[in-house]
Amino acid sequence: MIFLEKPKLTTVKIFLSLLFAFVVINLNAQQSDNLVKFVNPMIGTHKMGHTYPGATVPFGMVQLSPETDTLSYEHNGKYNGPVYKYCAGYQYDDVTITGFSHTHFSGTGHSDLGDFLVMPTTGKLQLNPGTEDRPETGYRSKFSHDNEVAEPNYYKVKLDDHNIVAEMTTSARVGFHQYTFPQSDEAHIILDLTAGIYNYSDKNVWTFVRIENDTLITGYRETAGWARTRTMYFAMTFSKPFTKYGNQDVSKSQVYRGFWGKFDQRNNFPEAAGRQLKFFFDFKTAANEKIKVKMALSPVSMAGAVDNLKAELPHWNFEKAKADGQALWNKELSKVKVTTLSAADKTNFYTAMYHAFLGPTLYMDRDQQYKGLDQNDHQAKDFTNYTTFSLWDTYRALHPLFNVLQPKRNEDMIKSMLAHYDQSAHDMLPVWSHHANENWCMIGYHSVSVIADAVIKGNANFDANKALDACVTTAKNKHYGALPEYIKLGYVPDEKSGSSVSMTLEYAYDDWCIAQMAKKLNRMDIYDEFMKRSQNWRNVFDKSIGYTRPKNTAGVFKKDFDVLSTHGQGFIEGNAWNYSLYVPQDPDALIETMGGKKKFVTHLDSLFTMYLPDKFFAETEDITREGIIGNYVHGNEPAHHVAYLYNWAGTPWKTQDKIRMILKKQYQPTPDGLGGNDDCGQMSAWFIFSSLGFYPVAPGSDVYALGSPAIIEATINLENGKSFTVKTQNQSDKNVYVQKVMLNGKTLDTYFIRHADITQGGTLTFVMGAKPKK
Amino acid sequence: MIFLEKPKLTTVKIFLSLLFAFVVINLNAQQSDNLVKFVNPMIGTHKMGHTYPGATVPFGMVQLSPETDTLSYEHNGKYNGPVYKYCAGYQYDDVTITGFSHTHFSGTGHSDLGDFLVMPTTGKLQLNPGTEDRPETGYRSKFSHDNEVAEPNYYKVKLDDHNIVAEMTTSARVGFHQYTFPQSDEAHIILDLTAGIYNYSDKNVWTFVRIENDTLITGYRETAGWARTRTMYFAMTFSKPFTKYGNQDVSKSQVYRGFWGKFDQRNNFPEAAGRQLKFFFDFKTAANEKIKVKMALSPVSMAGAVDNLKAELPHWNFEKAKADGQALWNKELSKVKVTTLSAADKTNFYTAMYHAFLGPTLYMDRDQQYKGLDQNDHQAKDFTNYTTFSLWDTYRALHPLFNVLQPKRNEDMIKSMLAHYDQSAHDMLPVWSHHANENWCMIGYHSVSVIADAVIKGNANFDANKALDACVTTAKNKHYGALPEYIKLGYVPDEKSGSSVSMTLEYAYDDWCIAQMAKKLNRMDIYDEFMKRSQNWRNVFDKSIGYTRPKNTAGVFKKDFDVLSTHGQGFIEGNAWNYSLYVPQDPDALIETMGGKKKFVTHLDSLFTMYLPDKFFAETEDITREGIIGNYVHGNEPAHHVAYLYNWAGTPWKTQDKIRMILKKQYQPTPDGLGGNDDCGQMSAWFIFSSLGFYPVAPGSDVYALGSPAIIEATINLENGKSFTVKTQNQSDKNVYVQKVMLNGKTLDTYFIRHADITQGGTLTFVMGAKPKK
Repeated sequence: MIFLEKPKLTTVKIFLSLLFAFVVINLNAQQSDNLVKFVNPMIGTHKMGHTYPGATVPFGMVQLSPETDTLSYEHNGKYNGPVYKYCAGYQYDDVTITGFSHTHFSGTGHSDLGDFLVMPTTGKLQLNPGTEDRPETGYRSKFSHDNEVAEPNYYKVKLDDHNIVAEMTTSARVGFHQYTFPQSDEAHIILDLTAGIYNYSDKNVWTFVRIENDTLITGYRETAGWARTRTMYFAMTFSKPFTKYGNQDVSKSQVYRGFWGKFDQRNNFPEAAGRQLKFFFDFKTAANEKIKVKMALSPVSMAGAVDNLKAELPHWNFEKAKADGQALWNKELSKVKVTTLSAADKTNFYTAMYHAFLGPTLYMDRDQQYKGLDQNDHQAKDFTNYTTFSLWDTYRALHPLFNVLQPKRNEDMIKSMLAHYDQSAHDMLPVWSHHANENWCMIGYHSVSVIADAVIKGNANFDANKALDACVTTAKNKHYGALPEYIKLGYVPDEKSGSSVSMTLEYAYDDWCIAQMAKKLNRMDIYDEFMKRSQNWRNVFDKSIGYTRPKNTAGVFKKDFDVLSTHGQGFIEGNAWNYSLYVPQDPDALIETMGGKKKFVTHLDSLFTMYLPDKFFAETEDITREGIIGNYVHGNEPAHHVAYLYNWAGTPWKTQDKIRMILKKQYQPTPDGLGGNDDCGQMSAWFIFSSLGFYPVAPGSDVYALGSPAIIEATINLENGKSFTVKTQNQSDKNVYVQKVMLNGKTLDTYFIRHADITQGGTLTFVMGAKPKK
Repeated sequence: MIFLEKPKLTTVKIFLSLLFAFVVINLNAQQSDNLVKFVNPMIGTHKMGHTYPGATVPFGMVQLSPETDTLSYEHNGKYNGPVYKYCAGYQYDDVTITGFSHTHFSGTGHSDLGDFLVMPTTGKLQLNPGTEDRPETGYRSKFSHDNEVAEPNYYKVKLDDHNIVAEMTTSARVGFHQYTFPQSDEAHIILDLTAGIYNYSDKNVWTFVRIENDTLITGYRETAGWARTRTMYFAMTFSKPFTKYGNQDVSKSQVYRGFWGKFDQRNNFPEAAGRQLKFFFDFKTAANEKIKVKMALSPVSMAGAVDNLKAELPHWNFEKAKADGQALWNKELSKVKVTTLSAADKTNFYTAMYHAFLGPTLYMDRDQQYKGLDQNDHQAKDFTNYTTFSLWDTYRALHPLFNVLQPKRNEDMIKSMLAHYDQSAHDMLPVWSHHANENWCMIGYHSVSVIADAVIKGNANFDANKALDACVTTAKNKHYGALPEYIKLGYVPDEKSGSSVSMTLEYAYDDWCIAQMAKKLNRMDIYDEFMKRSQNWRNVFDKSIGYTRPKNTAGVFKKDFDVLSTHGQGFIEGNAWNYSLYVPQDPDALIETMGGKKKFVTHLDSLFTMYLPDKFFAETEDITREGIIGNYVHGNEPAHHVAYLYNWAGTPWKTQDKIRMILKKQYQPTPDGLGGNDDCGQMSAWFIFSSLGFYPVAPGSDVYALGSPAIIEATINLENGKSFTVKTQNQSDKNVYVQKVMLNGKTLDTYFIRHADITQGGTLTFVMGAKPKK
């Protein structure tokens, strides 16, 4: 009996436990499916965040997003201002939408793109956008945030002036529009090839459009903007044949017309070319009739775009496309499962994950063809080609984050950077590159940091020795920055550049990265050479004042030096207070140079608390007033490591409270929640690392400095199949001080962990408290 | 003994006969090798011929030729005039050379191209061309015809101002320059990407240059000219490294500079892009030092150009390249071996052969890739892709000539035209196309004539039924010309076009071509439809005055009609006197309509003898005063068949003396020897046929009308291995009248032969005399 009973009970238990396991698994699966709901793409769309609210898949080639203005050089008559405001095409406080374009940067402080603006309208055909104050003078429409939905890979808005509901989703290379029209005999879909972001006079070099049949259009737009020589190709298809189509060419300088003048080229004429083309496609619609549009992009050719369209998104099921893309997002977002103290924290966390995984972006057709920096077409034989490398920003935390969460993609990004190097007439790795172009933005040669970090952390599924050679060649370029002078003098002289100190400091860090990689590869001659160069930060450090300071060729420090000012003071996006702390490769030496730990801590304390007069804020780019804490500029990047430096000065509790403060102050789950440009995910990557409790102060080393985790618990699901969990005890918004840290149950005696501690899987437990543990 | 002797004698005989045979063969070989010496590329380079004197191989992609001016829209401030004069870049009476560019049309009346002007200079670096009257203000140089040599695939000139001897030769895709410099510390080679032919303001859309290393440059030039959307790529290599290089960007509208402004981009900077780039490369030269330059072209990419360069012309042996190209010319020229009455006749004949074999031109990389009309890259799988189809001109005699001398190439040209059709947004065969563009010049849809002629003559190694479908679709296009009205009314109404009669007549002929092809392919529905359309010439024939005449939509002939005028009178490049004779498909019906043979002959006689007042000459395009005989305009094409029409009117002797007169008057072996544009070989093809004694009055039929041969004897070496010989008896400049014609010894009783008479091989013998055989 007992024997008879026991098995029964056991069976029941097994059944119950299986049922429980199933439920748990299923709940987890459901939870996984629902992570997109914690993302709010509206975060950062107001003021300085420069994010976009539209639809895209992780690292996708298409970013299909609304433009709230198309202000261009012609419209405002001056260089900057409104143009800068529309780096991502959308500003939350605007009241009109001009249309939906297919390419956007996320969070940049300069811009480009905005290709292929599509706008559905009803009523009188108008091919100019009109103005925000008088939207009825053009194709634009008023809209309300009440009628707006933004999710990963989904955007919806009602265009009030046209009574059209517009919905957007995407696949990697295809933008999918769904327009719900009212009954109308005058329904139009406009394709404005003159629209674009940062749209200077004459930015359009050429535009070309073919009407292949009554539902398929192909074409391209060639621009000379931030990317100097750039062409984007498209194939656009409609779910319903248009009844009529036509175009306007609004080129200021009319091109040669030749014998094309024989034709009425404006109406139902199937090929058009010129500098400034605008197209319209006419329909008759029933009430609530949906017209769908798919726009595939290609960096290579119209034929490539057609192939992308047909192979990647062959169907017309909008809901399926949306779901497929959101599933991709859930897969990426589920790489970190997090429990947080608040809903706001969770939204911030997953939105940061979302923003961090927007780019670098895919830049390759389905057949692996892409346009190279040399303007030739190339085949990416063994990798996925990526573009949009905002490296001055992203080497700091985004690529290190990828070394944890996206090592495979990061390797492909490095392969893309090495291909760029092979194609470079300058024999250089990318500085800031996008769409088959180097745009030379900012300073340093931070590709070397990204490569070194991957090599040091063991994510180097590429030819590391070749990569090292590329790094060395890049670091010795005769054209770039002030490298010849830097190599000769050991610093960039003030006469050569207004950013001489920033350049010297960043070069020195990059040189250290090269040295670390060389050491790992046993290339000791390079190690010696570049370790020596990495000491060059000392050459611009004026010990007499305790700050880095511009020095002229003769070796004399600049007179009339203002440590609060940036412009003309040797710096860029950070003054001497911030930039003097930029020796991430050797904080100990920095502390010593600055007069020891006590003076150093005082400097840091003051940085976070001092009052910065407005006149200095005025010269700080890319951020709102809220992007500054005291004199600490979180909205720009050069000080992103600074709060962690307390760890080296023996005051880790100061790191801990600063981190928790910055997380709270600089990241809000609101449209204006980002105090500065998100900078292609760098600001978000800082948030993710810091929320998890550790940060890569010096990429190129395998060490992370510990801060104060802001989450309750987080599990990182690694690509190697292992997982690394960050746990907290006694976590609260007040208990920001770390009392004890245990790695796999063993108490740590430092405030540092190594990369291998993460990748081999395990648990990092923070015991939190309300008081500093000194 | 006898036995001993006999073999000896036999041996001697055999030896002697072998020796004789060897000598004969060798003489023939030498004769073959020397045909290039009978070509004078200078013919047509003065005034209206619009030929170029530079180097090229048969049907080559590169035409490397001197420019004697770079006058452009900017320089002369008006549309036409000097620009027109420089259709081929060179005018014989000019005294300066601005440089050597790599692409030229031969004999066109509108123009484009002139890519990649290269000019060697010494002394002060100057990057503008200067002016003809003050060449010292620029890079151009005085030159003398005394120091100039022009041969097939070879051009040489001394540049007096720089003391440089410049020599040119080519392979199919590569231009090869050899510059013999004086001793100089300031030797330069200039690459002016702003130069070009028919160079309107803003014709340059974009230019891009990479310095790959100190002997290799790549780049491209994108233009919006006669070809609206056109890019030509290059790879340029030097036999000696340059010591220094640099550029100027003379764009009127400065493009966005962005962060490139950080660099000195003008000197030794390896990548440049902008609308208007000029480059210089500096050298130090010893006395008589030769610097060689090879410039490979590609219609596809810079990588394609590099491949063309390396694969096609890997060596630096200028003499070998020249000899290889001249051997290709000898091979083509030897397709007709001719003996003539005079040296001048022989020069005219082989120069006509040379001009006829300049194009259509190769438009394809070594790997068979080419840019299509749809601006996508395509692979020519089973054919050689050609471009530059001046079809309004060349359907008449050039393509028929190819059906005799170049049937394989003609088939590939038709395959190229069918590829154009496949790529056309308009679903049309080419009208006048070049470099991946349709330029829509002139009227008609004469591709159909070229295709029909090949089908009828059995040179149809292509899908003839598909080709017929393409012809039919082309002939029913809704955009082109006035086809909808033509189809509806049976004629092009005067309101629709100022060339309504010319259009109607040519459409009707083209329709007849389609019908002939349909009949051969047993597509009788198409035959019926298009035979009906081919009668439409009758609808614009006003029997009351005996001329074709514009008619309005209501069916009323135009009032105030001037039969001598062209413009606004319903015609183009020919007045009613000439154009009324344009019914090549049915001369018998035309004669009947014009009132019978007697009236018809009177009309023809008057045409050749009447006085045309100067005011009417003034509106006749593309020809000199000498291009007109009476009112017969040989310098334009619509009357090219006219002299042969006497055959249908029972007065063949009038054909005979007119042909001999035209051959003498319109073709001289001098720079100004062509009375009108050579029109891509059409004028030359007329000369060749007419010199040989027969002419294809109606391509699309297999019939040739006999004229009066001007040669003593000619052997046509056919591609099928057979030969067809034209012999004359009693030939002289006075004995222009044919007394008897024998085909393979059998006397003919008509003045017509068929294409098969030629292709099956044989001999056509003309017995000539001083008096008409009535």
